[in-house]
Amino acid sequence: MAAKVRKTATKLADGRDFFYFDDSPEYVSGEKTRRLDDPRPLGDRFAPHVDEDGNETAFTGPIMRYDVLTGDWIPMAAHRMNRTFLPPADANPFAPARPGAAYQDGEIPDTDYDVVVFENRFASLMRVPGVPDVVSYLDEGELLAERPAAGRCEVICFGPKLEENLISMGEKRMRTVIEAWVDRTEELMAMDGIEQVYCFENHGVAIGVSLHHPHGQIYAYPFVTPYTEKMLRQARAHREKTGRNLLADVLETELKLGDRIVAQTEHWVLYVPAAARWPVEMHLAPRRQVARIPELTDAEREDLAGIYLKMLQAGNRFHQNPDGSYVDLPYVSGWHQAPKGAEDDLRLHLQLISIQRSPDKLKYLAGSESGMFAWISDTTPEKIAARLREVWEG
Amino acid sequence: MAAKVRKTATKLADGRDFFYFDDSPEYVSGEKTRRLDDPRPLGDRFAPHVDEDGNETAFTGPIMRYDVLTGDWIPMAAHRMNRTFLPPADANPFAPARPGAAYQDGEIPDTDYDVVVFENRFASLMRVPGVPDVVSYLDEGELLAERPAAGRCEVICFGPKLEENLISMGEKRMRTVIEAWVDRTEELMAMDGIEQVYCFENHGVAIGVSLHHPHGQIYAYPFVTPYTEKMLRQARAHREKTGRNLLADVLETELKLGDRIVAQTEHWVLYVPAAARWPVEMHLAPRRQVARIPELTDAEREDLAGIYLKMLQAGNRFHQNPDGSYVDLPYVSGWHQAPKGAEDDLRLHLQLISIQRSPDKLKYLAGSESGMFAWISDTTPEKIAARLREVWEG
Repeated sequence: MAAKVRKTATKLADGRDFFYFDDSPEYVSGEKTRRLDDPRPLGDRFAPHVDEDGNETAFTGPIMRYDVLTGDWIPMAAHRMNRTFLPPADANPFAPARPGAAYQDGEIPDTDYDVVVFENRFASLMRVPGVPDVVSYLDEGELLAERPAAGRCEVICFGPKLEENLISMGEKRMRTVIEAWVDRTEELMAMDGIEQVYCFENHGVAIGVSLHHPHGQIYAYPFVTPYTEKMLRQARAHREKTGRNLLADVLETELKLGDRIVAQTEHWVLYVPAAARWPVEMHLAPRRQVARIPELTDAEREDLAGIYLKMLQAGNRFHQNPDGSYVDLPYVSGWHQAPKGAEDDLRLHLQLISIQRSPDKLKYLAGSESGMFAWISDTTPEKIAARLREVWEG
Repeated sequence: MAAKVRKTATKLADGRDFFYFDDSPEYVSGEKTRRLDDPRPLGDRFAPHVDEDGNETAFTGPIMRYDVLTGDWIPMAAHRMNRTFLPPADANPFAPARPGAAYQDGEIPDTDYDVVVFENRFASLMRVPGVPDVVSYLDEGELLAERPAAGRCEVICFGPKLEENLISMGEKRMRTVIEAWVDRTEELMAMDGIEQVYCFENHGVAIGVSLHHPHGQIYAYPFVTPYTEKMLRQARAHREKTGRNLLADVLETELKLGDRIVAQTEHWVLYVPAAARWPVEMHLAPRRQVARIPELTDAEREDLAGIYLKMLQAGNRFHQNPDGSYVDLPYVSGWHQAPKGAEDDLRLHLQLISIQRSPDKLKYLAGSESGMFAWISDTTPEKIAARLREVWEG
């Protein structure tokens, strides 16, 4: 692993995978603190379920149903209803273990860490050992299908402190996060049945964040997501028509026109897409054909750490309150990576979107968006880009 | 027009179409009150725009961009940023005109009404006379396309009183609303360039409702919406494979299995779809092949008025607070109608969805939904259906 990051793999008490990514010798996890094991008496997460009458049923994990009206798979994670929601600071499950405590409620066994990744305790995608990944049907006519939601949901904590965020932690830590994305994308893409890996971050209560600790998520889907399916269809039609890669042509066109370019570095281009559908939307793309994060060179990763943080900073200067202060932008920032077999058609790019349409107003996904999937924008891509350029240097 | 509804067409001062649908002789609009004209000194809505330096530019209306990454058209209504948002009751623009007032700010010229429909003042879809509906390109390579968003957005007010709603107004009024949907679907589908008509209602502040007055909306899209495109692709694949109509087969299967059926009447079936993606979701379908609302028989419309209101009532009993009171369910309720040319493939059905996942929690569309269009449900369709059956009779 590049960039002097040390990975240590361990397991939580209930069998979930847990990885430390330490970025500075002497490494904090297991060296200074020497406590990598999870001391909690957590039960086997695959244990049979016992109902009120004492009857046992085997745990088969979450399922997903095929929506025959749209062609989408819908994972159904009914067990997630009771997940932790905005706990007080002293019950933060992503805080490091308290030194000397015999038992603790959090997810982190060690008393310090740099970056950690672990399987989500409330996973909507989960492969359960012994449960075959096969389609079954609710009806004899085989119209209504279901399958195990045999993917994987991981959490990535960017640092040990509740009050920090990616921006305050700086480029060196960002670089470690990138290495963690590289590692997880490689390992998850190699797993049976995984079609696509999505590394993303939800930021802000307005977007539904349920824990304030600075963290992101990594979903390994056992299907190609609907957004990616749309992109694949468009990319393949474009290749048939022109012989070229769609995302390469989009990037070249945006660079030529220039009106929606926000910033450029040696290896990356940040622009507002010509049909931006959200009040704030940015795409961050490498200059060359890259299908997934692990293919990025060291130089590209180094460069990315810088522009990623500048992008977040510009987002935080986008909306200004009447008193001159800025709105901490709620956002979803996620990596579009090629699914298996689509390495030539798709191209790695990050999409950052925000529902904040003014300092005090949010965009809601109401009838047209939720019922018809037909987005309506209240602004223009050129206005978004102009504002971002205006606030880029701070 | 059936059901003893009288339609009166008029115009607002700025040229927008305005329709009264009166349901009881003596008819309230123009008979009892005799004031159908709009007395406001509103400017021509298609007037040229004059900038700070006095330069005139022709008003060309909203445009839409083609999102080449997804294949979706995205209307961009930058002029809507300043639309009215949750005004106080005395500034309710959907209230009837005050008797004797020489001038009023509201949208309703008459001092009373039953149901009215009019073109939205802050329309994201609008055909501007003289603006040709042609595609142009941002770039020489013709990759980034735009077109006028030459559709139409109408508002439908269900009644004159701010504090009422469809449930409190009752079946007779609901029947009038159905007649208004029939009328508008027929007229809008006959307009140049309109592909699809969507009659829907956003209910509740949590879904982004910007005006409390009981109202719905009618969008006439100049394109086939992404959701409908997905359904069409699935329906056509199903017909190729089986020779049958997809939605007919889904309905037949749901009736046979029964677990997700909520209620049935002579002409309608209300069920939770097998792959429901929202915390609450119901589909309401006629028993026979009907492409759009105007094809419904009188008996089907009559029957619909009853089950529609019972459906809303059951929704309002879905979530119970700890004190025994119920949550007024925020919802989107919208009609999927066949676009032009797809009358045999698609079938009319209503979809009601809610983001309320517990009495005090909402479902947010975060990373997976917003970034990947991959919905994850926190419940199961069978649980939703069981709860709805439990509260159906109140």
